[in-house]
Amino acid sequence: MNNFSFFNNTKIIFGEGQIAQLTQEIPADATVMIVYGGGSIKKNGIFEQVTSALEGMKWIEFGGIEPNPHYDTCMKAVEQVKTANVDFLLAVGGGSVIDATKFIAAAAKHQGDAWEIIQSFGGAVQGALPVGCVLTLAATGSEMNPTSVVTRADTQDKLFFNSDYVRPRFSILDPQTTYSLPARQVGNGVVDSFVHVLEQYVTYPVNAKVQDRFAEGLLSTILEDGPKALTDPQNYDVRANLMWAATMALNGLIATGVPGDWATHLIGQEITGLYGLDHGQTLAIVMPAVWTYKLEQKREKLAQYGRRVLGITEADDLIAAEKAIVRTREFFEAMGVRTRLADYDLGADVIPQVVAKLEQHQFVQLGEHGDITPADAAKILELAL
Amino acid sequence: MNNFSFFNNTKIIFGEGQIAQLTQEIPADATVMIVYGGGSIKKNGIFEQVTSALEGMKWIEFGGIEPNPHYDTCMKAVEQVKTANVDFLLAVGGGSVIDATKFIAAAAKHQGDAWEIIQSFGGAVQGALPVGCVLTLAATGSEMNPTSVVTRADTQDKLFFNSDYVRPRFSILDPQTTYSLPARQVGNGVVDSFVHVLEQYVTYPVNAKVQDRFAEGLLSTILEDGPKALTDPQNYDVRANLMWAATMALNGLIATGVPGDWATHLIGQEITGLYGLDHGQTLAIVMPAVWTYKLEQKREKLAQYGRRVLGITEADDLIAAEKAIVRTREFFEAMGVRTRLADYDLGADVIPQVVAKLEQHQFVQLGEHGDITPADAAKILELAL
Repeated sequence: MNNFSFFNNTKIIFGEGQIAQLTQEIPADATVMIVYGGGSIKKNGIFEQVTSALEGMKWIEFGGIEPNPHYDTCMKAVEQVKTANVDFLLAVGGGSVIDATKFIAAAAKHQGDAWEIIQSFGGAVQGALPVGCVLTLAATGSEMNPTSVVTRADTQDKLFFNSDYVRPRFSILDPQTTYSLPARQVGNGVVDSFVHVLEQYVTYPVNAKVQDRFAEGLLSTILEDGPKALTDPQNYDVRANLMWAATMALNGLIATGVPGDWATHLIGQEITGLYGLDHGQTLAIVMPAVWTYKLEQKREKLAQYGRRVLGITEADDLIAAEKAIVRTREFFEAMGVRTRLADYDLGADVIPQVVAKLEQHQFVQLGEHGDITPADAAKILELAL
Repeated sequence: MNNFSFFNNTKIIFGEGQIAQLTQEIPADATVMIVYGGGSIKKNGIFEQVTSALEGMKWIEFGGIEPNPHYDTCMKAVEQVKTANVDFLLAVGGGSVIDATKFIAAAAKHQGDAWEIIQSFGGAVQGALPVGCVLTLAATGSEMNPTSVVTRADTQDKLFFNSDYVRPRFSILDPQTTYSLPARQVGNGVVDSFVHVLEQYVTYPVNAKVQDRFAEGLLSTILEDGPKALTDPQNYDVRANLMWAATMALNGLIATGVPGDWATHLIGQEITGLYGLDHGQTLAIVMPAVWTYKLEQKREKLAQYGRRVLGITEADDLIAAEKAIVRTREFFEAMGVRTRLADYDLGADVIPQVVAKLEQHQFVQLGEHGDITPADAAKILELAL
């Protein structure tokens, strides 16, 4: 096991009816900005639950956060934060809304050009408004981590930053809020959380037994209950298990003491930045290709994953690993998320564009060994055509 | 899954050589009291590592914390804290030292009789000195939770309290510190951490898949690596896996959204308070008896535990559950921890004494259904003779 530090001080309030707890978590004299996305929360009753809980407090709203939230949209929110003297940000939505809220929180306190926050990967953040969350989609894990991903539409850059200042103070997770999600978002969310676990698990063995088994437990849960969320969308236990699994998948816990890959995420982000594919779609395209390209290095952990999670009984590691890749692709497809560039009308001509973006962003040493260069990424994408 | 709240803000610094990080975690101008136990840390180099890391800072030491730390000993430390104007407490030891340090931290700030802290189960705590830990024994999980157990020798009361004020700010976990432990402490620690998981897992099913699989992952890890700590005491990975498993076993995570039993702990505590048995010994005695007495209620989860953790292939739940009890007893014995009252020269005459203590402490509705009365505890202890 590798040395590590672990710290996570986000309070989780989980279960049906917990949105009413908001009053306990936000200072009574705060001026709150409710940040949300396309407005579905106004149709499904969540906005009403939130504003009922905030009754008697001062609040304003800022809607219209896009999937892959735009820097320009966030900066408009920052203006309103300053005008209205907002001192608490409440994200109501999925990962995009929470990521945007984190950026708004940091940008509202930032001196100078807010894009420095991204360019410094968060190092330039010296403070932030407090952030709370009401989660409505099991997917990104943003509700319990210090990470945010923001997209600059004009330059097609989708980039992340990390800062302890933007960790949510609390996140309310009511599985019922996910009942009305469209199948496409359910599928993307399941793939996203599944891939988060895999990025921290399918690397090379370091004899970290707790971390491996926690990762396998999350994978088994998502594998079992993911498809049920499509066929039985109002099953509370299914939604609850997926929601808790997604939060645990990227809150730092299973990353402790083990290597991380993240090549799939970083290559996938460039595809979203350039062509607008959903985040989950890019992961489903890239991960099987990364694994095929790095089969020899990842053989042992792929075989372990195949045997412990997928029930593969093959004794030979290499064959078990190959079967695990096939089965993973089948799972993504079963969740309605296609796994080839061609499925999205993209061809080999995208490869040099993605490579150029990776070089521009200096993502030139990817993977758990730091040995995936942009030239390797090109070969990986050829396997994903 | 049941509704829950989860919060844990202890920072964990894990791995070989991490004691040197102490300087980063304690304010430079603090006056530190190093709290420790019987003095083994002065023989095995840990005290020297700690004081080297604190070089240039003001510190005093307080040794002599007993296993099952005594209230009177803690109160002597409180006097010294006040005399020396100590403003940071550093526990260097296992669960007893950390529990004592938590009590000292609360008592030093308490107005009035410090025993009120225990009598109120921590409710009377209004503040505490900051606590940090250097853990030297994988067992109690005290390094990452708000709980402390203190014993009053004069009245033979071993009782706990909880308070967020005494949560460790940080805990340093270097697996190498456990290399020189006597086999008895290794065995007790393994049993303790194993039973912590079981208390939160062998209850009744609530379809909490992540929590169940995390619990099973911890159990499998302890089951595999526990015996290796006896046969190969300087195996770093074994010690690291046991240490991280013990911390995860009782930091609140696997308790989220599931019922808890804790009858074994509460009955076991009375046996330690009265007769001085090691904590781990009492757990090994009581748990198989609780399970046998509550076989019907616990059948499903016992069978699940048997199949997923112990590799039992029996199809019938009741038979699988019975086999799981036998196998668990065998595991405790293999760790050198005997599982019958008679093994410690205790007979049926102890039963009324334990029952009287449970009644005195108002522990009259134990177990996940609250249906274990002191009269039931008597029947349980008859099964443990």
